[in-house]
Amino acid sequence: MTMNQAVSPLAGTPAVSAELARFAATSRWEDVPQAVRHEGRRSLLNYFAVALAAARDPVLDTATRTYARFASDARASLVGRARRLDMLNAAALNAMAANVYDFDDTHHPTIIHPTAPVAPALFALAETRPLSGAQLLHAFVLGVEATCRIGNAMSPGHYARGWHITSTCGVFGAALGAARCLGLPGDAMVAALGCAAVQAGGLVEMLGTAAKSISVGNAARNGLLSALLAAEGLDGPPQPLEGLRGYLRVAADAPDIAPVSAGLGERWEVLNNTYKPYPCGVVLNPVIDACLALAADPRIAGGGWAAIERIELTGHPLLKQRTDRPGVATGRQSQVSAQHAVAVALVRGRAGLPEFSDEAVADPGLRALGQRLGFQDDASMSVDAVKVRIAFQDGTLLEREVQAARGSRARPLQDGEIEEKLRELCRHGGARVDADRLIEAVWTLDEAGDAAAVMRLAAEQPAA
Amino acid sequence: MTMNQAVSPLAGTPAVSAELARFAATSRWEDVPQAVRHEGRRSLLNYFAVALAAARDPVLDTATRTYARFASDARASLVGRARRLDMLNAAALNAMAANVYDFDDTHHPTIIHPTAPVAPALFALAETRPLSGAQLLHAFVLGVEATCRIGNAMSPGHYARGWHITSTCGVFGAALGAARCLGLPGDAMVAALGCAAVQAGGLVEMLGTAAKSISVGNAARNGLLSALLAAEGLDGPPQPLEGLRGYLRVAADAPDIAPVSAGLGERWEVLNNTYKPYPCGVVLNPVIDACLALAADPRIAGGGWAAIERIELTGHPLLKQRTDRPGVATGRQSQVSAQHAVAVALVRGRAGLPEFSDEAVADPGLRALGQRLGFQDDASMSVDAVKVRIAFQDGTLLEREVQAARGSRARPLQDGEIEEKLRELCRHGGARVDADRLIEAVWTLDEAGDAAAVMRLAAEQPAA
Repeated sequence: MTMNQAVSPLAGTPAVSAELARFAATSRWEDVPQAVRHEGRRSLLNYFAVALAAARDPVLDTATRTYARFASDARASLVGRARRLDMLNAAALNAMAANVYDFDDTHHPTIIHPTAPVAPALFALAETRPLSGAQLLHAFVLGVEATCRIGNAMSPGHYARGWHITSTCGVFGAALGAARCLGLPGDAMVAALGCAAVQAGGLVEMLGTAAKSISVGNAARNGLLSALLAAEGLDGPPQPLEGLRGYLRVAADAPDIAPVSAGLGERWEVLNNTYKPYPCGVVLNPVIDACLALAADPRIAGGGWAAIERIELTGHPLLKQRTDRPGVATGRQSQVSAQHAVAVALVRGRAGLPEFSDEAVADPGLRALGQRLGFQDDASMSVDAVKVRIAFQDGTLLEREVQAARGSRARPLQDGEIEEKLRELCRHGGARVDADRLIEAVWTLDEAGDAAAVMRLAAEQPAA
Repeated sequence: MTMNQAVSPLAGTPAVSAELARFAATSRWEDVPQAVRHEGRRSLLNYFAVALAAARDPVLDTATRTYARFASDARASLVGRARRLDMLNAAALNAMAANVYDFDDTHHPTIIHPTAPVAPALFALAETRPLSGAQLLHAFVLGVEATCRIGNAMSPGHYARGWHITSTCGVFGAALGAARCLGLPGDAMVAALGCAAVQAGGLVEMLGTAAKSISVGNAARNGLLSALLAAEGLDGPPQPLEGLRGYLRVAADAPDIAPVSAGLGERWEVLNNTYKPYPCGVVLNPVIDACLALAADPRIAGGGWAAIERIELTGHPLLKQRTDRPGVATGRQSQVSAQHAVAVALVRGRAGLPEFSDEAVADPGLRALGQRLGFQDDASMSVDAVKVRIAFQDGTLLEREVQAARGSRARPLQDGEIEEKLRELCRHGGARVDADRLIEAVWTLDEAGDAAAVMRLAAEQPAA
């Protein structure tokens, strides 16, 4: 067959593609609330933090080597690396770096990691054309807005079906954000959404493998490419999102379409973004909070943990469902294992990337302690809460309760905590980057005449 | 969330990813039947024909200009163009060219156009590393096999839901074919399938617009990229196709998985490939056959058609459902309009690309004649058949019946007809290409020491 039916207005369906495009084209910086701007800067700070962590990552090394073979120029920087590639390849690799450890930001309730696909496309573009810091930050919050609203429309069915929602929705945000940077009018923005819609892909099946990173990278790269193609006049259909065979209806069984464009400019999705304190599945956050506090207890510190007979977690049923994974084999798998998370937090008193490495997983003491873990479901509890109960061999007990985990919406990471995350992950990644200068540049991005300056600070600097 | 559940064998599901990969890795050229090789060559001949038609196409011009900005070298040729780009961009653009007019091949029953995504990836690779003609042809039929078997598993629900099946399934065939050219072992081929699965995309909504071409190009480009990444050791999950969140289950509601790997090497899907005689939806083929025959009748030829009062088509209900489109506005839309197809075939006695152009659609005589068309459904008829009944103002009648359209499986295009299609489309496209030398090179591809030689013949030659 060669063609679908003539597009006709769908009864009762608002023209969300056109409305989203018009908003992205006409939004004024002075109408963007201070709180939105600030959350945008926090998201970018967290972005540089997590991307810097991957400065020596083998998956990123392989991808960089392969993509570099196809670089047409060296105008765009890579976070934490000295190498420079063209903007499409740089956008892809920086998005991959930001997401490879699943340590990036989390939008609620979609569980999208919105910054990884959007920010790299815009910074790459900024290295090829004049763009002020305010223009970039504005385009970024608009791109996050599109990504998360499209995700809202398809949640929770889209992810539950198996689509990697960060990748699939991220390409739309990257496209609209880049189109905004290019100054495209609304109709060209609809075309950009169409070009993005045919490039949306990514599967939950790939989590825990390197193949996952490809689609996250593509979301940034192909979103940027979509904007460039639309700028050249390539056309798409008028309803790429809400059409009869548009992305929302094809990739979700029961999309809730109208909210995609309802209240644009009144509520902002970036305000629902959160930042992880630990490189783990978010349901482990309260567990790790509690265990880090317990690790300082004299009965556990200094080897006292060896006398633990049993550890019991009482939490929302999702906690057991998603994290009851004894005997994991790799650092990647340990990021969603309660057995490993509890053991490593109690024994080492830390819960950073080194604690979720292959090395840590192979530690026999941690494995033995993890085997003493049990779960109690309590459906009345929040997923942000947990009770940890430790029974020692001598019959004594130790308990700790967390009502709202660090990094949750009720208890968000403070600005200073995100700064410290950046410093720590920069050290972990090992790139020669001045973390403090980078932090300062992100906080003052609005005033920067050249948005690309911050990217150049995030790239690895020449050895002294 | 950060990770899916540990992959466990799915009860009753054969390991089709591994089996498909093993077949692609170990298939022996001497075991490929002569009929399969010949159909492969016919598919390639048709590929060059349709890609040459787009040598001056504005959509391809735009895409070429944009993609050329990101070309890292000039090692790979473009069909019908003098410009050379790197292999990824060339693969994308050649796939777009082959499919932009929907005049390419059609696999039954999936309606996949299998050659557009697969062949360009392999020819582009052949221009960067030694590859014999037989090696390329072998990899090509293996890639078509994977594409069409994956399509079979998801048909008809996948396309009906709105996925552009040529794009979504083509990326797998391009990946496996390219992986075969690289000599990858079976486990790396599974990784290549995983890298492809996260890049599968494309929507029916985009048909009739330029955005459609992007996903067809991506299928070739990203399939090739998947093979290159797998060759570098990037890993994916063990069951990218059949896993719980693998592509087949995510992108189809009720996939029929087992046939993906049943009887590999015993039956070959390329034998179910057909070639269009007209640049139209396939259900119009018998209608055009009949009308071209009627156009030679003395009562119609020489302006006699002006005396037609009414034209009635009796055919399978799909004919009316898909092609009852009076008043179309563009050449693209006219490709699925029975009104336009009947009128232009009767009046001009031809049905090539010029007859489905914006110019032809604007012809008021054709519009007036098309308005005299009616349909009669007859569910007992084949979609390859039609009865055309013409009533003149003087009360006389003229009838023509077609039982099996040209280009159907029952009446496939002859080798000479595909050759003639190539010559005609080469002229239409206007590229300086020696059609006869190209035809000869495709027929003798098996004996060519360098598969890339045929690609260089398909590129535009320097002006004399």
